[in-house]
Amino acid sequence: MLVWFQTKVLVQPIIYMSHNYPFIKLDHGSGGTFSHELVEGLFRQRFSFAPDLAMSTDASPLNLNGQKLRITTDSFVVDPLFFTGGNIGTLAICGTINDLAVSGAIPKALTCGFILEEGFPLADLELIVDTMAELSKRIGVPIIAGDTKVVDRGKVDRCFINTTGIGLEREDSGHVSQGDQVIEGDVVILSGPMGDHGMTIMAARHDLDLEHQLSSDCAPLSTMISAVLNEHAGNVRFMRDATRGGVATVCCEWVENRSLGIELIEDSLPVRETVRGLCEILGIDPLYVANEGRIVIIAAEKVAQNILSILHSFPEGEGASIIGKIQKTNPRRVILRTAFGGSRFLSMLSGAQLPRIC
Amino acid sequence: MLVWFQTKVLVQPIIYMSHNYPFIKLDHGSGGTFSHELVEGLFRQRFSFAPDLAMSTDASPLNLNGQKLRITTDSFVVDPLFFTGGNIGTLAICGTINDLAVSGAIPKALTCGFILEEGFPLADLELIVDTMAELSKRIGVPIIAGDTKVVDRGKVDRCFINTTGIGLEREDSGHVSQGDQVIEGDVVILSGPMGDHGMTIMAARHDLDLEHQLSSDCAPLSTMISAVLNEHAGNVRFMRDATRGGVATVCCEWVENRSLGIELIEDSLPVRETVRGLCEILGIDPLYVANEGRIVIIAAEKVAQNILSILHSFPEGEGASIIGKIQKTNPRRVILRTAFGGSRFLSMLSGAQLPRIC
Repeated sequence: MLVWFQTKVLVQPIIYMSHNYPFIKLDHGSGGTFSHELVEGLFRQRFSFAPDLAMSTDASPLNLNGQKLRITTDSFVVDPLFFTGGNIGTLAICGTINDLAVSGAIPKALTCGFILEEGFPLADLELIVDTMAELSKRIGVPIIAGDTKVVDRGKVDRCFINTTGIGLEREDSGHVSQGDQVIEGDVVILSGPMGDHGMTIMAARHDLDLEHQLSSDCAPLSTMISAVLNEHAGNVRFMRDATRGGVATVCCEWVENRSLGIELIEDSLPVRETVRGLCEILGIDPLYVANEGRIVIIAAEKVAQNILSILHSFPEGEGASIIGKIQKTNPRRVILRTAFGGSRFLSMLSGAQLPRIC
Repeated sequence: MLVWFQTKVLVQPIIYMSHNYPFIKLDHGSGGTFSHELVEGLFRQRFSFAPDLAMSTDASPLNLNGQKLRITTDSFVVDPLFFTGGNIGTLAICGTINDLAVSGAIPKALTCGFILEEGFPLADLELIVDTMAELSKRIGVPIIAGDTKVVDRGKVDRCFINTTGIGLEREDSGHVSQGDQVIEGDVVILSGPMGDHGMTIMAARHDLDLEHQLSSDCAPLSTMISAVLNEHAGNVRFMRDATRGGVATVCCEWVENRSLGIELIEDSLPVRETVRGLCEILGIDPLYVANEGRIVIIAAEKVAQNILSILHSFPEGEGASIIGKIQKTNPRRVILRTAFGGSRFLSMLSGAQLPRIC
């Protein structure tokens, strides 16, 4: 995910040295408010000469001789490297492919850069590379360039991967990454159960024996997204993958500085029983848990059922449902209507709920 | 540098588990034979379905709707982060820009991904980001996308950066990255003294007090390279930046599987006195020391003096000289005519001379 540009420019630059602590904190990589502050307060300030930066998107637009490209970059530092449903290589391919797809682009090529620790088992590297090669072949997006660096023992944790993706913007879908065409009454769709990836990582890290009940949702979504856009590009108003910071953070980022708000219905939020149970035990809200194969779509109400049918026809979208709608009553806010008839406002993730989730 | 594709496909796949040691070694990141083996034996084997891989270049070609792009990716893990003449941010921009430029492409955009250690000083991050922003502005290539990950203390060494570059291939220069048009009698030009970067890093790492005598050569070379190609694209037959593995490795890679060889004249190899002295003390051959702002050009003899004049008109090319020529007598070999009238064959760097040089 391309966190730097997921957020809008604020009128007041935010001070990223939160609480006068002049060091990087884990929270700065959480995808929540600290990340947001670092991006707005440092990176965007310094790099703001590039006109393309002044927008919020998962993949940055680049015009080359009239050709509209989309570019996204991501580093992957997940711990553990291998988990139920995938490994760091799966994430590296899916994360980048999905960022392009939700920006209304057709992924065309990937690059990858490996940073390896001295002593890293070649057998593990082979497994990771095999996964990446297989995925790249399956979705038809070649890995065209690469780089390998090796760092002395103890100076990097086994294996980090950076992937950069290059895509061609669909002529009919350039608007979906910003979501400026969203109107009152539009519906919010989530493509499947929340939190599978985050809780799988959590379980693996703490050696919880949930292997048969829990699996990461990481998957390349470009084919499913194409199917939706081919039918309904004009009525799909916004798309974003709900990675670091979860579904709540995607919604909170979208409402920022808008004259509209989002109402989510707690009862309609899809969460697997195992995930819900684990979240309860750990005191975590699944709305903030990272996913690696789930997207939030905001679309015109009239096509919502049809979009659901399309999503349901794909394995990675079979749990898709409508989770809320766009309203005027609480502009700039995300409100959650709870199962007991109450309601509460959701805010962006404020700390690092689970570091190194991707 | 894009090591994966700098080397040609060999008839026999090389076994990258050298000496049955099934783990990553520092040597695998050296840019020499071990890197070469890893690339050929693992990455190229697995990713070989992409037709563009079957060539040797610093930046991979990508055709999008008839538009010829070049893409390159690099991770930077230099230690120390700050050194005389630059910092990791300088390298991240220059390395990627230069890879595009020597491939006959005009750099158009950059992405960057930061991996930061918890506790990394924000003031250092600011310095690095400022350097990158200033350089990117100066050469007119915007940083259009980014990503930040934070890793827990001790799991990464302060700050690593990945940059990916996107360029447009010049219509007249697509051939320079492969060097297939080189003929007997062509001359080999080096754009400046060898080894400044590598020895600066070495001195900084060992706290040698050479600050006033030694400075990294890292510099963006796209403007200088454009000036050469604008005049002589047709007669420039090959270009490569002499980074990891140094000038010797560039030459050794080029001669591989060719019916031609390279003769280098030791007396004409430009090396600063401080670098030569330090190399002697440490038992290092400057031909294998990394540079971050030096290119090897193979060009038709008739334009060699003119190319030198162009190079000399730029600060980063003022030490340029002719260092050798292309000959038929020793195909597939690089031969060094020594100052004492002798000669020896040069081979690729075989171990990690100085890890984390970039």
